[in-house]
Amino acid sequence: MAIEFDTIAAISTPPGEGGIGIVRISGDEALDIADRVYQLGNKTLKDQKTHTIHYGHIVNPKTEEQIDEVMVSIMRAPKTYTREDVVEINTHGGVLAVNQVLQTVLHNGARLAEPGEFTKRAFLNGRIDLSQAEAVMDVIRAKTDKAMHMAVTQLDGNLSRLIRNLRQEILNTLAQVEVNIDYPEYDDVEEMTSQLLVEKAKQVKEQVKELLETASQGKILREGLATAIIGRPNVGKSSLLNTLIKEEKAIVTEIAGTTRDVVEEYVSVKGVPLRLIDTAGIRETEDIVERIGVERSRKALAEADLILLVFNQNEALTAEDKLLIQATDEHHRIIILNKMDLENHLDLEELKQLVNPESIVPTSIVTQDGLNDLEAKIADLFFSGKTGERDATYVSNIRHIALLNEAVDAFDDVIEGIETGMPVDLVQIDMTRAWDLLGEITGDSVQDELITQLFSQFCLGK
Amino acid sequence: MAIEFDTIAAISTPPGEGGIGIVRISGDEALDIADRVYQLGNKTLKDQKTHTIHYGHIVNPKTEEQIDEVMVSIMRAPKTYTREDVVEINTHGGVLAVNQVLQTVLHNGARLAEPGEFTKRAFLNGRIDLSQAEAVMDVIRAKTDKAMHMAVTQLDGNLSRLIRNLRQEILNTLAQVEVNIDYPEYDDVEEMTSQLLVEKAKQVKEQVKELLETASQGKILREGLATAIIGRPNVGKSSLLNTLIKEEKAIVTEIAGTTRDVVEEYVSVKGVPLRLIDTAGIRETEDIVERIGVERSRKALAEADLILLVFNQNEALTAEDKLLIQATDEHHRIIILNKMDLENHLDLEELKQLVNPESIVPTSIVTQDGLNDLEAKIADLFFSGKTGERDATYVSNIRHIALLNEAVDAFDDVIEGIETGMPVDLVQIDMTRAWDLLGEITGDSVQDELITQLFSQFCLGK
Repeated sequence: MAIEFDTIAAISTPPGEGGIGIVRISGDEALDIADRVYQLGNKTLKDQKTHTIHYGHIVNPKTEEQIDEVMVSIMRAPKTYTREDVVEINTHGGVLAVNQVLQTVLHNGARLAEPGEFTKRAFLNGRIDLSQAEAVMDVIRAKTDKAMHMAVTQLDGNLSRLIRNLRQEILNTLAQVEVNIDYPEYDDVEEMTSQLLVEKAKQVKEQVKELLETASQGKILREGLATAIIGRPNVGKSSLLNTLIKEEKAIVTEIAGTTRDVVEEYVSVKGVPLRLIDTAGIRETEDIVERIGVERSRKALAEADLILLVFNQNEALTAEDKLLIQATDEHHRIIILNKMDLENHLDLEELKQLVNPESIVPTSIVTQDGLNDLEAKIADLFFSGKTGERDATYVSNIRHIALLNEAVDAFDDVIEGIETGMPVDLVQIDMTRAWDLLGEITGDSVQDELITQLFSQFCLGK
Repeated sequence: MAIEFDTIAAISTPPGEGGIGIVRISGDEALDIADRVYQLGNKTLKDQKTHTIHYGHIVNPKTEEQIDEVMVSIMRAPKTYTREDVVEINTHGGVLAVNQVLQTVLHNGARLAEPGEFTKRAFLNGRIDLSQAEAVMDVIRAKTDKAMHMAVTQLDGNLSRLIRNLRQEILNTLAQVEVNIDYPEYDDVEEMTSQLLVEKAKQVKEQVKELLETASQGKILREGLATAIIGRPNVGKSSLLNTLIKEEKAIVTEIAGTTRDVVEEYVSVKGVPLRLIDTAGIRETEDIVERIGVERSRKALAEADLILLVFNQNEALTAEDKLLIQATDEHHRIIILNKMDLENHLDLEELKQLVNPESIVPTSIVTQDGLNDLEAKIADLFFSGKTGERDATYVSNIRHIALLNEAVDAFDDVIEGIETGMPVDLVQIDMTRAWDLLGEITGDSVQDELITQLFSQFCLGK
């Protein structure tokens, strides 16, 4: 029961040079348009079975000029990404090859797709709900394996199922309330109905709150814990960095685009993804001691969720060390007492006066001593030591978090309304509001503008 | 009759965020490996028909962890890119999703492919010859539509056919020479054989030379004509640039990577692709007059195949103008006398003393006057006015050009040998050398090291 749309096309592979580029076409006319530009003897794609692949050439039908040698995949509705007829043209990679094939397709009847329009159609045609559509983008943008797993779980519909169950419970209650109001056979019906509403509001609110409790962890799993390694020169910052990256293996090394000149590296420590801030800065400052951009450290500090403050216990605390302690006082912080393989010259008792003794971890990065303790401490700090519940449902999307918080407010209004003796039909409105708010997560109740805005954040060709 | 290889895998789409990423597997075990990581109920890919597409999940078989939702394409040998069994896993785009699927495939029996290894197998398994394999990379790297068309033509085997015909002629001659030598029935057989060799050497040499004559045009079509727009501030450089880009429409705007900070733009002028050098510089200098980096202009000059030197005919020639004339004296150059819509203050007779009068084109970029003349002059300078012989075979690859030049030398040796009365069996050796050299273009006679070296320049996943 697909809604009728025009036929759209876009490049679905990332821009740049590669072995294969894909031009994707979706809509009623996808096969007709493909046939106009496809050539292999007298073969027509329209006569081919669904979910099959065909060798041929893309040819400009006006000039007869051959544009590229291609493989064309045909997928007929409804078992496709958009639930419409989909044709994917696999070209030789390369910016120009893919672009020329796209231009030819556009000149022969397709419209250029907007960002996210394929996924939007998958949503509008009912193949996936809104939280699954959002998960698609999360999969694409995932920077850590945890984030990826969380997104795939959401894409699979785990969050949707949970939300739908909660909504169903609310709906059942609202139906019961209607029945009670319509058939007030007993004297205590008002009492009973109020009771029913309060109980259900409290119960669902608890479940929503449990979900919200995963949010801070979800955010960390999604974005990685912004972690700054701070310390004077030569205390072992870059060795620590290299150890974390090598031992735990960097998952993604991303050279950020045009706006920032910061290199970010992701490492996974006991399942906690750390996003290491300004690692280029660390490398630089250890090489060129004069350039210890204090300003740069301040910037990293402001951004950080976790500070790894490194001292060299082979030297006494300096004034600079104490400044760093002060500057990081308000942060989640682990004090790394490095170079334990060397003689002790740092007054541990003095340090314990200045920082929480619990936060101190003695290490020797050279001998690898203490690294396990460090990792355990990081996991402890953010997940109370428990990580890796593989199939837990986490909420990580800020839109979802906001809606869940509003739903909690609505439940509170229900509870307060009953307790202050408000009429049941007014309280009913708040309960319905909670039901609507949860529906916005899955897209069951949602405004057109929101949908437009959401999908506009997608990348082209998805 | 595919040679036996192990099974290889790589990411075939460009790196980065996109709607679709592809992991390609090729080799005897491609389907077995895919089945190990593919999951959809009890379905096995091995039981599916060739050239079909299947929905499912990629799952880590050890942990049962779901990695991504995918579409899997199955193509069985021999009708595949490599002539081996090929499986392509289309994942959600994104760096991590594609990487995790690749890692899973590698952990389950595939080896990471080297750059170009899929195309190398296509060559070694006899699907394409060496010049076609090189064309694959040219298609991917093409920056102008002419370059793209030239590569697609070569990929189609045009150059190969031409070379093979020449080699066949040489081979026929060599066979005839053998016969003559083995059966010297007549007295004048030596005379006849010499005659035959000289005639054939001269004839094939002419054809090779004709091919070589396309090389300089081929190079321009392939790489674009490096063009610098030079002139004092406010003579109309950036208007000219914008007019060229807008009117003729930019084909590719490429922001070069990490090593260069220069923006290059490609425009097509009457079929001549111009690669405009340092267009960012032009834009800057017109905005910020103080920054007319003379040094920057010198750099652009050194690189340029063509100089567009712009003067404002509303002003008298300045000392700086004359310096620019001197600096560009050795280049292909067109003098643009701009601002013809304004009063003339430039002494045309004086200018004609300084530059070739033929090279002067009066224009008004504001009123668009003279632009056609400019374009005609550019086409004239490099293609004697003739461009756009759509299906001509151009040689543009420097490896091919070098081999063709060596072949010409070998033919000269044949001709000289006969003329100086060398024995036929020695001359035969030179003729065979020419035959071998031409064979290196198509890969019919070629060293293993050369093949290894050639394919190592390919991108990953091709």
